Amino acid sequence: MLDTTPEGRAAAALQALGDALEGGDIDAALARFATDCYWRDLVSFTWNLRTMEGKAQIRDMLESCLADTAPAGFALLPGEPVTEEEGIVTAWFSFETGVARGSGILRLNDGGIWTLLTTMAELKGHEEPQGFARPLGAKHGQGRHRPSWKEEREAEARSLGYSTQPYVVIVGGGQGGIGLGARLRQLGVPTIIVEKNARAGDSWRNRYKSLCLHDPVWYDHMPYLPFPPTWPVFSPKDKLGDWLEMYVKVMELTYWTGTAARSARYDAAAKEWLLTVDRDGEEVVLRPKHLVLATGMSAKPNLPDFPGMDRFRGDQHHSSQHPGPDSWAGKRAVIVGSNNSAHDIAAALWEAEAEVTMVQRSSTHVARSETLMDLAMGPLYSEQAVRDGITTDKADLIFASIPYRLMAGFQIPLYEQIREHDRSFYEGLERAGFWLDFGDDGSGLMMKYLRRGSGYYIDVGASQLIIDGEIALRRGQVTEVTEDGLRLDTGEELPADLIVYATGYGSMNGWAADLISQEVADRVGKVWGLGSGTTKDPGPWEGEPRNMWKPTQVEALWFHGGNLHQSRHYSQCLALQLKARMEGIPTPVYGLQEVHHKG
Amino acid sequence: MLDTTPEGRAAAALQALGDALEGGDIDAALARFATDCYWRDLVSFTWNLRTMEGKAQIRDMLESCLADTAPAGFALLPGEPVTEEEGIVTAWFSFETGVARGSGILRLNDGGIWTLLTTMAELKGHEEPQGFARPLGAKHGQGRHRPSWKEEREAEARSLGYSTQPYVVIVGGGQGGIGLGARLRQLGVPTIIVEKNARAGDSWRNRYKSLCLHDPVWYDHMPYLPFPPTWPVFSPKDKLGDWLEMYVKVMELTYWTGTAARSARYDAAAKEWLLTVDRDGEEVVLRPKHLVLATGMSAKPNLPDFPGMDRFRGDQHHSSQHPGPDSWAGKRAVIVGSNNSAHDIAAALWEAEAEVTMVQRSSTHVARSETLMDLAMGPLYSEQAVRDGITTDKADLIFASIPYRLMAGFQIPLYEQIREHDRSFYEGLERAGFWLDFGDDGSGLMMKYLRRGSGYYIDVGASQLIIDGEIALRRGQVTEVTEDGLRLDTGEELPADLIVYATGYGSMNGWAADLISQEVADRVGKVWGLGSGTTKDPGPWEGEPRNMWKPTQVEALWFHGGNLHQSRHYSQCLALQLKARMEGIPTPVYGLQEVHHKG
Repeated sequence: MLDTTPEGRAAAALQALGDALEGGDIDAALARFATDCYWRDLVSFTWNLRTMEGKAQIRDMLESCLADTAPAGFALLPGEPVTEEEGIVTAWFSFETGVARGSGILRLNDGGIWTLLTTMAELKGHEEPQGFARPLGAKHGQGRHRPSWKEEREAEARSLGYSTQPYVVIVGGGQGGIGLGARLRQLGVPTIIVEKNARAGDSWRNRYKSLCLHDPVWYDHMPYLPFPPTWPVFSPKDKLGDWLEMYVKVMELTYWTGTAARSARYDAAAKEWLLTVDRDGEEVVLRPKHLVLATGMSAKPNLPDFPGMDRFRGDQHHSSQHPGPDSWAGKRAVIVGSNNSAHDIAAALWEAEAEVTMVQRSSTHVARSETLMDLAMGPLYSEQAVRDGITTDKADLIFASIPYRLMAGFQIPLYEQIREHDRSFYEGLERAGFWLDFGDDGSGLMMKYLRRGSGYYIDVGASQLIIDGEIALRRGQVTEVTEDGLRLDTGEELPADLIVYATGYGSMNGWAADLISQEVADRVGKVWGLGSGTTKDPGPWEGEPRNMWKPTQVEALWFHGGNLHQSRHYSQCLALQLKARMEGIPTPVYGLQEVHHKG
Repeated sequence: MLDTTPEGRAAAALQALGDALEGGDIDAALARFATDCYWRDLVSFTWNLRTMEGKAQIRDMLESCLADTAPAGFALLPGEPVTEEEGIVTAWFSFETGVARGSGILRLNDGGIWTLLTTMAELKGHEEPQGFARPLGAKHGQGRHRPSWKEEREAEARSLGYSTQPYVVIVGGGQGGIGLGARLRQLGVPTIIVEKNARAGDSWRNRYKSLCLHDPVWYDHMPYLPFPPTWPVFSPKDKLGDWLEMYVKVMELTYWTGTAARSARYDAAAKEWLLTVDRDGEEVVLRPKHLVLATGMSAKPNLPDFPGMDRFRGDQHHSSQHPGPDSWAGKRAVIVGSNNSAHDIAAALWEAEAEVTMVQRSSTHVARSETLMDLAMGPLYSEQAVRDGITTDKADLIFASIPYRLMAGFQIPLYEQIREHDRSFYEGLERAGFWLDFGDDGSGLMMKYLRRGSGYYIDVGASQLIIDGEIALRRGQVTEVTEDGLRLDTGEELPADLIVYATGYGSMNGWAADLISQEVADRVGKVWGLGSGTTKDPGPWEGEPRNMWKPTQVEALWFHGGNLHQSRHYSQCLALQLKARMEGIPTPVYGLQEVHHKG
């Protein structure tokens, strides 16, 4: 008799799929999928981050990867109940490949497997030393001249980068580089993180003083060492900086502060990079096998080139250089831009009693932080989710199990709900002249972030100041900067003592151009974006963020970053790819990123 | 019909007890207890740490405390299964008092309640801001001149101890003072921790270089922020030092480094202490309402006074001053003492190829670390326990639920098992001439620790060196130190280039004498020990450690410390007692510690 409970259906589908894959029977495997189907793989079958859409793509992947992968042991995860909601059965499972252990999430609809996520968790024989396998620490037994933990750490600090070479160098020591460095450390991959600032965490400390994270704490944990339950919902920048600084120390990372990466070139014969850095004034040439750029999506300021900027007699700077509002009481401040930084800086200047005008040059999406927390984040990343047993790791996998192709469709009704929930707020903004959007297709903030990484404000209070006219708003383009302010294409002149250019950041690709060469940067092509064919994210459709956390067209060059959630989760994929290469485990890459756009 | 399942019996007993207590019916409450019974209360009924033994003591406590306590709402804790083992039913419960919420553990035997633990978890209206109640961090909305997190922290650092006074000063910034400081911070009790060393963690860093914790990581967590799963089983001292340093920062403690407490006196009229400290050369007088001595059980070296010490021409120092073995290769080292430090230092000197002799002056208990981990710690504090759902908080409560009176009886069979398990090891030690004991009553290490805080070695390898004769062993008393070594009462002379006096530490009471006065120290009396009537722990029986974490005979003077487990758990009791006093909540103390012995 057929077992028609959700558990029974999931177990049957998983077993049939597992049997087919284990037996190398691609047709039988495909027969388990629904017509409309998706398989997202994080480095377990493809040694890549790939979403296969439809049976043809799945067939192509399996024909290329199945024999090498040798998957086996598919089994429902004990302790994770199978659920059914609106006709969709969701189940968690574990599996193995020839070289690794993994886990995944399966969704069934009436036609069969609708979505499948497979993700690598650990390499066999190279498991992380934690839990039962954690190091002993003390040296029990007897032995002559055993160094202490401190002596070992000091010896490593002296030698790595000089008498011994790191396998990986990570350029950029923000949360991205640090989290990846921690994972590589646990995997025993010798790594140096180079950071231009004097202390870990300075990339946060150096920002405008009112800055707090716009994402809540449950979304922001670093690997291994979560924030304590006393941690604030939205981390103040300096507190986050202190956390990162202690994390570097506690996780025993080799982290070179005051170190600027000057130039890099790849020696294809030796299969290693020659990376020249300036370490506190000393030139050091590092020869890692792999180079990871983790310089952040917000590391290369986009300073505009308005006519007349050189003649302005007040203070002007990019938002990344803005020190805070303290000396601007009673002065006139103009903020060019209308995204997160623009709003935060405008509000802080208003608080300090400056006279603030915001110049909005293009439409902007706004969503209230509180509403996002309740309606968008809540189910996966909230205190309630934690109480409901959704650990950070589980939330990350659930989020990863939604194919990017389907995501906008899931987001549109959510943002319709948000629009309704905050109707009077949005009406107020529009009455104040704010040029509002919800993304090209109404899919809101998350999709804007994934597609273009810009174009929104998570409201923590500045919007009300705009609604109330406390922050003046102008719509238009800047035609020129004058001695005393700036002029808009509306003809209006805005007198200013201070101009803040909250005009965003360049692509991570630009960093590769600066550090390596324009030719290499062009070979890599555009970094970030899904190819959605929406504003600032031209097609063709890619199905995954371009060039992030996965092999690029340039050998041994990797890009890492994103928000704290992405840095945490995808650092695991990237660390496993690097570890496998170090151990000489074959890593045949399926579907290497093609380049359709230069950076 | 009677419900005779463990759940049913526990629910019935708890309800009957709860009803009786809620109704103020002491006779009815007592009727629920077995003849042989124990009630341990941690500040919820008694505003003290007290174990009532037998019905007469319980009656006395209830007659004194019940009306004030106003307990209510006794209920089995959902999610904690009631268990039955060897006829004993164990159940977890929660309850309230007039001012607090608490939890506890109940054990039933055939006669009724055998053991009862009641412990305060939080004060109503003064809950810690964590989880759902964590701070927001960001300042949402609008407001003029709001300081940033960093500005607030800086302002607090400038004012506290100068223009504003702390409610509590903790003298001693080791793990004890730090953990208590963290709890007080969460409770909003203005606190300064004064630490003589230059950096938090230095009290560990300054010890001999091979030192690692002898207790495993699961036993050692600090409040709020547990060690990550990558943390070693036995923390190396410098790594622990770094952890404590970052903890102080991350938990936002006001922690004065380089600050020596010079003198203190209590102004009974103003009900505050005048504590004079030297802060980096500046004399500061602090006026806290409460003074906590958290200077550690190992803070006041016990340097012996052997005749002739002044004429010794080699190096001699107390074990706390021992820098490590590095310059002693080929030299003759004599270690006076045979407890943990003596063994660790002897082994490290042997590793560095010194010629090492240990002088054993009295019998010593030895237990192998590995065996202790398996047989003694494992059920509560181990990776397996964590996997079995025994969180640190749960393990602490389970441990706390065993009345001290019963503990030795539980430990004796364990140490019989250990003796059997490591029979050949112990035989080897005795063959080597080692003077072994298992405590006066064979109850082993934990009881020695609780009774006298000394007299044992947790073996991590040195014992084998003694068995093998690699470390020479002598039994006897030191009669004098000569120019070239020392002489024993056996007549033997031991030539030495180095003498290490691993002769232990003075009582915490000595600290009170130094800082305040001998008169006050004598009023406090002996600190530590249970009054077991065994070696170095004279009776009468106290039932709880003397003067630790609870009110003493000296108003507003408190002692805090112990191992990492005790510091973690009992810092909660102490923090709640201090918070209640700050908030003006009545805290009538039942059964204030009587003094039978001077320090």
